[in-house]
Amino acid sequence: MFKKILIANRGEIALRVIRTCKEMGIKTVAVYSTADAESLHVKFADEAVCIGPPSSSESYLKMSNIISAAEITNADAIHPGYGFLSENADFSRICDEHQIKFIGASADMISKMGDKATAKETMKAAGVPCVPGSEGIMVDFADCLKTARETGYPVMLKATAGGGGKGMRAVWKEEDLQDAWDSARYESKAAFGNDDMYMEKLIEEPRHIEIQIVGDSYGKACHLSERDCSVQRRHQKLTEEVPSPFMTKKLRKEMGEAAVKAAEYIAYEGAGTVEFLVDKHRNFYFMEMNTRIQVEHPITEQVIDFDLIREQILVAAGVKISGKNYEPALHSIECRINAEDPYHDFRPSPGKITTLHAPGGHGVRLDTHVYAGYSIPPNYDSMIAKLITTARTRQEAIDKMKRALDEFVIEGIKTTIPFHRQLMDEPAYVEGNYTTAFMDTFEMKPKA
Amino acid sequence: MFKKILIANRGEIALRVIRTCKEMGIKTVAVYSTADAESLHVKFADEAVCIGPPSSSESYLKMSNIISAAEITNADAIHPGYGFLSENADFSRICDEHQIKFIGASADMISKMGDKATAKETMKAAGVPCVPGSEGIMVDFADCLKTARETGYPVMLKATAGGGGKGMRAVWKEEDLQDAWDSARYESKAAFGNDDMYMEKLIEEPRHIEIQIVGDSYGKACHLSERDCSVQRRHQKLTEEVPSPFMTKKLRKEMGEAAVKAAEYIAYEGAGTVEFLVDKHRNFYFMEMNTRIQVEHPITEQVIDFDLIREQILVAAGVKISGKNYEPALHSIECRINAEDPYHDFRPSPGKITTLHAPGGHGVRLDTHVYAGYSIPPNYDSMIAKLITTARTRQEAIDKMKRALDEFVIEGIKTTIPFHRQLMDEPAYVEGNYTTAFMDTFEMKPKA
Repeated sequence: MFKKILIANRGEIALRVIRTCKEMGIKTVAVYSTADAESLHVKFADEAVCIGPPSSSESYLKMSNIISAAEITNADAIHPGYGFLSENADFSRICDEHQIKFIGASADMISKMGDKATAKETMKAAGVPCVPGSEGIMVDFADCLKTARETGYPVMLKATAGGGGKGMRAVWKEEDLQDAWDSARYESKAAFGNDDMYMEKLIEEPRHIEIQIVGDSYGKACHLSERDCSVQRRHQKLTEEVPSPFMTKKLRKEMGEAAVKAAEYIAYEGAGTVEFLVDKHRNFYFMEMNTRIQVEHPITEQVIDFDLIREQILVAAGVKISGKNYEPALHSIECRINAEDPYHDFRPSPGKITTLHAPGGHGVRLDTHVYAGYSIPPNYDSMIAKLITTARTRQEAIDKMKRALDEFVIEGIKTTIPFHRQLMDEPAYVEGNYTTAFMDTFEMKPKA
Repeated sequence: MFKKILIANRGEIALRVIRTCKEMGIKTVAVYSTADAESLHVKFADEAVCIGPPSSSESYLKMSNIISAAEITNADAIHPGYGFLSENADFSRICDEHQIKFIGASADMISKMGDKATAKETMKAAGVPCVPGSEGIMVDFADCLKTARETGYPVMLKATAGGGGKGMRAVWKEEDLQDAWDSARYESKAAFGNDDMYMEKLIEEPRHIEIQIVGDSYGKACHLSERDCSVQRRHQKLTEEVPSPFMTKKLRKEMGEAAVKAAEYIAYEGAGTVEFLVDKHRNFYFMEMNTRIQVEHPITEQVIDFDLIREQILVAAGVKISGKNYEPALHSIECRINAEDPYHDFRPSPGKITTLHAPGGHGVRLDTHVYAGYSIPPNYDSMIAKLITTARTRQEAIDKMKRALDEFVIEGIKTTIPFHRQLMDEPAYVEGNYTTAFMDTFEMKPKA
C-alpha cells in the first residue's frame, strides 16, 4: 500500500481524499496556491507545499511544480481529484516516468477517451450505443437524405461551424428535409462563411444519466448503478440523484452492461463514469467517459455504503475488485452549493464567510472545505460545499434536503442555497419529470 | 397524522425530533427554560414557549407548564425525548386526559417497567431470562446455601443496605459460602446497622448489550438488533456500537426473540430498549426496559437505514409496523461528546463555545444543538454532541471515528474529544475486548 499520497487539487475534493487517506493510515501531502493557504485541505494534510501563485496555470496545472512537490516530500502516489490535471494524459505519463503512481487512468486510456471522436469510435467498436448520424460532413443532399433514412427521424442537421443554435434544424419527417437542408446551409454560410453540415439523431427529451464504474488492473470492471445529472445550467450540473426517477430495472441492466463493456474493452483501471444521453423512449447513447472521480460521487457512496476514493486507492495499489454490480438500495440527492447569487443570474460571489452553520442529523452528509472566517478566492470554481441527503425513498430524501437546506446558514456571501430550496418544491422536480432542458424555463421566485 | 407536535425536552434530542417532524411536514413547538433561549431547538422549531426558570423541576419537569404550552399552541401530540418526563407514568396519563397523544409508552406500561422489581416479575412471567438469585432476603444460612445451589456458582452475596462494595462477597464454590455469609453480614451490620442479605448470580465479565425494539398499537413488535454499551463510567454510557463485537448470529437471534417476547407480552407500543447483561459464556439476563428513545439510537438508524423518530411518530399515529427484524448490515459507533474535562476526572466544563468546526464527509453524522457563540448552561446534562461514524467494517468505523475526532474543533470549553480519541487507540477497545469494567482501569495519557 502507498505510504504517502500527494493530492494535486484543492477545495472539497482535496479534503475528501485526505479524509480517506487518514482513515487508511496513509500520509498526505497537500499542495496549494498562495490564494489557498487558509483552506482546510492545507490544514488537515500531514504536509503542505505551496506550488505557486493564484493563477491555476501557475499552480494547480503546473506539472513540474507538482512533481517537484511529490519528490521533495517522498510521496509515492498522486491523487489528481477532478478537473485540473485529472484527465491530462501527459501528467499521467510524467507521473509514471517519475515512478509516482498516478491514481487514475493511464495516459493511453485518457488519450483514448479524452478526444470525443476517438472515444466514439472506440465505443462503437466495443458495441456501446452511440448517437447515430453521418460519418463527418455530408457531401450533398442525396447523402443527407440517405443518412436521415439510416439514422431514423427525428434528426438534427448541424452546421460544423455552427453555434448558438445557428445552422441547426430539427427535422421530424422526410418531406421537411430539403427545406431544412437549404435553410440551414444558407444560414450557416451567412453567419460563418461555411455551410458544411453533419447530422445526428435528435434525442427527444434527453436526460443525462451516467453509470459509475470501477475497473481493476486485471481487466475486470463492475458498475455501481447510475446518477441522474439532468438538472444542468449551461452544461454545469446543479444537483444529482440516484436512482434516476426515469430508471427502470431493465434500463439499468442494459446501461450498466454497456458501461462495463466499455470499461473492459479498454481495460479501464480505476473509478470512471460513462455518461449517456437517454431519450424519452429509454434509448441510450454514449456521450463521453470521464476517467476520474466525479464531483457527484458521494451519492453513489451513500446508496452502496462504501467509499469510492478508498476503492480508487486500492485499485491503484493493485487490489482486485469483487466484480459485483450494485443496485441502489436507498435514494440519495446531492445539491452543489456554489458561491453564486441565484437572484442575479448565478453570478459569482466570492468573499469572506462570516457565519457558517452546518446542517446535520440523520441522513445528512456535508462535504466542504470552507468554514466561518474563510475567504473564498475569486480564482477558482465557485463550488463551496456538497450537501447530500439519503433516505429510503425519493420523497424522504427530498424532504430531508429541504430540512437540511433550511438549517444551512452561510453569511457574508451569496450562495445557491435558495435555488436548491426552491428546486426541491418545483412540481416537475418533485415528480422526477425533468430533462436537460429543465433549467431553460426555471425562474427564481422573488425573495420572501 | 399529527398536525403539530410539542417537544417536551431540550438539547440535541429536541432538535433531533424537530428535524424529523419537519421532514414529515408536521409543525413543531419547542419549550425552553430561560437558560435555553439561545439553543438551536428553540431557533429551529416553528413556535417556542418559555416554560420556566433554569431549574428542571420548574421547567422541563413541570407538567402543568408543558401541558399549558401544548394547549395554547394547539399541539396534538407531545414527544418527550429521553430523560425528564419521558418515563413518567403520570405525565403519560395527564397527556391522555388532555387528549394530547403522548409519543411514548402508556402510563400502565411505564409503571410496569419503571419499577425494577415489578419489571423483573413481568419479564419472568413472559419467559425472559432474568438474573437468578434469592427471592428477596434470605432468612438464614440454610436458605443461603439452598439458594446458591439453585442459582449456580459463582454467586454474589449482597447486603440490602450495602453500598460501595461493603457487605458484598463473590463466592465461587460452596466451601467458601459460610465464611462469606458470616463476614458479609458482620461487615454490613458494622457499617449499616443491618445484616439482611440477598443473592444474585455473579455475572462474569458482564457486557451491557441492549436490543432496540419497536411495537405497534396492534400488539406486534420487532427488533432492530443490538447496541453494545459496555463502555461506561459510573453507569454513564460513553460510547456505543453496533454490532457488538461480542455478538454472534445465534446470540442475536436469542436476545432478539427474548426482547420481542418481552415487548409483545406487555403489548408495548413505540420504540423501546430491552437492556441485558451478557456474561462471558454468552448467557444473557434482563436488566431493565427503557420505554423511550435512547441517546444512542442513531447507531441503529445508521445500520438499518431508517429513522427511529419517524417510526415512533408513525406508530403513535396508529400505523402498523412490518414486524420484520433487522440484522445490522454495517458497523456504526457513537461517541458522546460531553462538556467535561477528561484530564480532571471528567468534571463538567460549562461555558461559551468560541469556535466550532464540525467534522463531515463520508460516513460521518453529527447530532448537536450547539454552535460557535453558544453558552452551555451549567444546569443540565453535559452532553453537547453525538458523533457517529458508519462503515462496512468495525475497523473502518474506528478509523473514521479517529479522523472525525481529529477534525472536530471545539474551543472555549473542555470536551471529551481527547478521551474518545485515546479510546479509539486502546488495544482492548480496538480488539472489541471490553466489559462494563473497562473504565475501572482506564487512564488518560498526559497531553501530547
